[in-house]
Amino acid sequence: MKHFIDASRLSKDEINYLITESENFRSALEGREIQKLPTLRGRTVVTLFYENSTRTRVSFERAAKMLSADTMNVSASSSSVQKGESLRDTGLTLKALGADAIVIRHPLSGAPDQLARWVAPNGDGPSVINGGDGAHQHPTQALLDAVTMTRHLGDMAGKKVLIVGDCKHSRVVRSNVQMLTTLGAEVVLVAPPTLIPVGAETWPSRISHNFDAELSDADVVMMLRIQKERMNGGYFPSLREYTSLFGLTKERHAKLSKQSLVMHPGPMNRGVEIDYPVADAPNSVILEQVHNGILSRMAVLFATLVGEDS
Amino acid sequence: MKHFIDASRLSKDEINYLITESENFRSALEGREIQKLPTLRGRTVVTLFYENSTRTRVSFERAAKMLSADTMNVSASSSSVQKGESLRDTGLTLKALGADAIVIRHPLSGAPDQLARWVAPNGDGPSVINGGDGAHQHPTQALLDAVTMTRHLGDMAGKKVLIVGDCKHSRVVRSNVQMLTTLGAEVVLVAPPTLIPVGAETWPSRISHNFDAELSDADVVMMLRIQKERMNGGYFPSLREYTSLFGLTKERHAKLSKQSLVMHPGPMNRGVEIDYPVADAPNSVILEQVHNGILSRMAVLFATLVGEDS
Amino acid sequence: MKHFIDASRLSKDEINYLITESENFRSALEGREIQKLPTLRGRTVVTLFYENSTRTRVSFERAAKMLSADTMNVSASSSSVQKGESLRDTGLTLKALGADAIVIRHPLSGAPDQLARWVAPNGDGPSVINGGDGAHQHPTQALLDAVTMTRHLGDMAGKKVLIVGDCKHSRVVRSNVQMLTTLGAEVVLVAPPTLIPVGAETWPSRISHNFDAELSDADVVMMLRIQKERMNGGYFPSLREYTSLFGLTKERHAKLSKQSLVMHPGPMNRGVEIDYPVADAPNSVILEQVHNGILSRMAVLFATLVGEDS
Repeated sequence: MKHFIDASRLSKDEINYLITESENFRSALEGREIQKLPTLRGRTVVTLFYENSTRTRVSFERAAKMLSADTMNVSASSSSVQKGESLRDTGLTLKALGADAIVIRHPLSGAPDQLARWVAPNGDGPSVINGGDGAHQHPTQALLDAVTMTRHLGDMAGKKVLIVGDCKHSRVVRSNVQMLTTLGAEVVLVAPPTLIPVGAETWPSRISHNFDAELSDADVVMMLRIQKERMNGGYFPSLREYTSLFGLTKERHAKLSKQSLVMHPGPMNRGVEIDYPVADAPNSVILEQVHNGILSRMAVLFATLVGEDS
Repeated sequence: MKHFIDASRLSKDEINYLITESENFRSALEGREIQKLPTLRGRTVVTLFYENSTRTRVSFERAAKMLSADTMNVSASSSSVQKGESLRDTGLTLKALGADAIVIRHPLSGAPDQLARWVAPNGDGPSVINGGDGAHQHPTQALLDAVTMTRHLGDMAGKKVLIVGDCKHSRVVRSNVQMLTTLGAEVVLVAPPTLIPVGAETWPSRISHNFDAELSDADVVMMLRIQKERMNGGYFPSLREYTSLFGLTKERHAKLSKQSLVMHPGPMNRGVEIDYPVADAPNSVILEQVHNGILSRMAVLFATLVGEDS
Repeated sequence: MKHFIDASRLSKDEINYLITESENFRSALEGREIQKLPTLRGRTVVTLFYENSTRTRVSFERAAKMLSADTMNVSASSSSVQKGESLRDTGLTLKALGADAIVIRHPLSGAPDQLARWVAPNGDGPSVINGGDGAHQHPTQALLDAVTMTRHLGDMAGKKVLIVGDCKHSRVVRSNVQMLTTLGAEVVLVAPPTLIPVGAETWPSRISHNFDAELSDADVVMMLRIQKERMNGGYFPSLREYTSLFGLTKERHAKLSKQSLVMHPGPMNRGVEIDYPVADAPNSVILEQVHNGILSRMAVLFATLVGEDS
């Protein structure tokens, strides 16, 4: 594939191909003293971040370096962007500077798509990888989540995944719903009505306002980060009430099956959306998600830069 | 050459040597899967930026990495400079940290020269490369412009180059005038009187306030970025009037010879100093300039760090 | 050793081992065209800085790169820390991202110790290296100082070291007192009573308020940086009086033995705690300290990541 922008455009085969590549990289690196493969030597991966996200940027950077690529970081706060340069001209400049892939994080939905049309109008410019565009898509996060689930649960067909919390402002939800339902999973958005995204009733997921009712047969519980500011009157009466209804407390955790997975894209607000000990429970795979993020991004860089056309 | 600080100190032979080296790097890299040469392996290039300029910094960084050098970025905002350390002590510290070359960007004219005297008093310390000092010099920009022109127009002797716009505040103008006239070109500064630098009447260039009168026989039109704030009463009555008199509009572009080049150091304010489609016209070499910037900086790093004394 | 956190925990043998390793790296690099050793190829060193310190960060980064390690920089201002992530979760995330060593700079004393317990509870996670925790410890600075002294003065047993100035707020003092007295040196803190740390009377060093009385038989005079704001009424009546009583003026410098060393951790306030020419005197080893900082940090990275258990 040339670009990696939108989870909804990926077929089941393509997702499975990327999951397989992620696992191939895991095997290739396992037990190696030197955590590095020569795959992308001489290639340049640029991270172009119009929003702060150290976690995502560092993960891409490390994925690129483990494939022996060079990296360049351009952040909006310190660049020509401040001087009013358009996204198009910034993209074309990075292309002229020799970028082979541009990982873009942008507050506006659709920016990665636009960028791809500008820098690779005939399909021969740099690859564009979506590192999160507004609350629209964050497809590498969805991929790393799929890699993590598949590793523990096998085929996701028929598995029940709860995505719990601020589904409205999270950039994780939409990509996850698309990718997981393409893999055949049943996805339930669990949130108060004020935190369900507009239009979510038309998505291939189900909506629930009752966390407790969904727990017992869930295979995965993915907790979303709560921004505390939003919970004091804005979207919910109080943080305490939010936690009591939608937090993954010890009590709720006890009702989960032992084979189920607890997930969180991080950074966590322990004590708010997830209880302190729950985040460290034996069935929590939150730190595995971080590691799988590197493998997934290696797979995406490989698929877009050298992979067979698919 | 030990340092690369001031375009006015370069002989015609030295400029041609650097242009030839830039083209040699172009050829050496063409068609290579791995865009990297081992020339500077184990050497350390430090970028010491007292002003923000992602574009210049990234270009130097990439030039250094393509020659396999290590890079270290030190920006004034996050360094000992804030704690009041002098430029001299900062320079000596970078030398002690093992810098082989220091690329400095500084708001004060003459800072690179001072730094060179401090870190290499007997010619045996790190090389100093001027990445722009105030409105004084930006010699690698002038070199990349010369490389771009020479590539398209051959010998610059007798060629007519217009530099149009805010010549007063641009750090590009002086170096370009010096380098291009050394190569035998005729350089015309085209600007309203308020945007002509003090003392420019003694330069080897000509001054014109009439853009239209200079167009028909121009070989190069180099447009300079306009800072919008300066055009509202400060240096010119209004932005709209500025564009009508000194912008490279479609109408003016149509009067240029087809063999002429349209250039811009970037970032552009499309719609102000240059019309939207003009920046993308077939004779626009603006993105080539960006690419040639890397080759030119590779040539400068090579010439200062390993090149024969010249 | 697994971690490198606290100078007080190091035995004389361990300190001497690290000094020897630093000198081994000096020899290994001397005369090499390529200033790089393959020792840590494929390892990842993360700098996690909750406070700005370009000098320390760049030194660690360069040490890591000279050993062929990859580096990742995470600064608190641009990271999940801002979003309220705990130090524990940040540390575990970096571990999951593949950090082999975490160099932490933190305003709170004890943070590196905590971090080590969290990321390597059974001694098998990443190594933690203290890059400065509050006014508590800065053990790599103490090591580089010891390397510098030993190189010039040989065995430090019985040598007299003055540490002069703001001992209260400096992060350098405590580690230096511990490491130097472990090596058998006599350490004297020279400062006005207001700038002596609480509890320093129980340390294995001596306290003096009379700089002049200590000069003649000193082997080392280590001047500390003065923050000007603190000297105007806060901790001392005036900056001028401070300099006259505790500055290393030309007059005081003349009273030192020619074999003595003048040191400063930098960045210097020339004209305040140290006179302009004194910082450049033949017996000043201030820039050597910077270079030895790289060698010392190479030794620490080597000892914690591949060194024999000791």
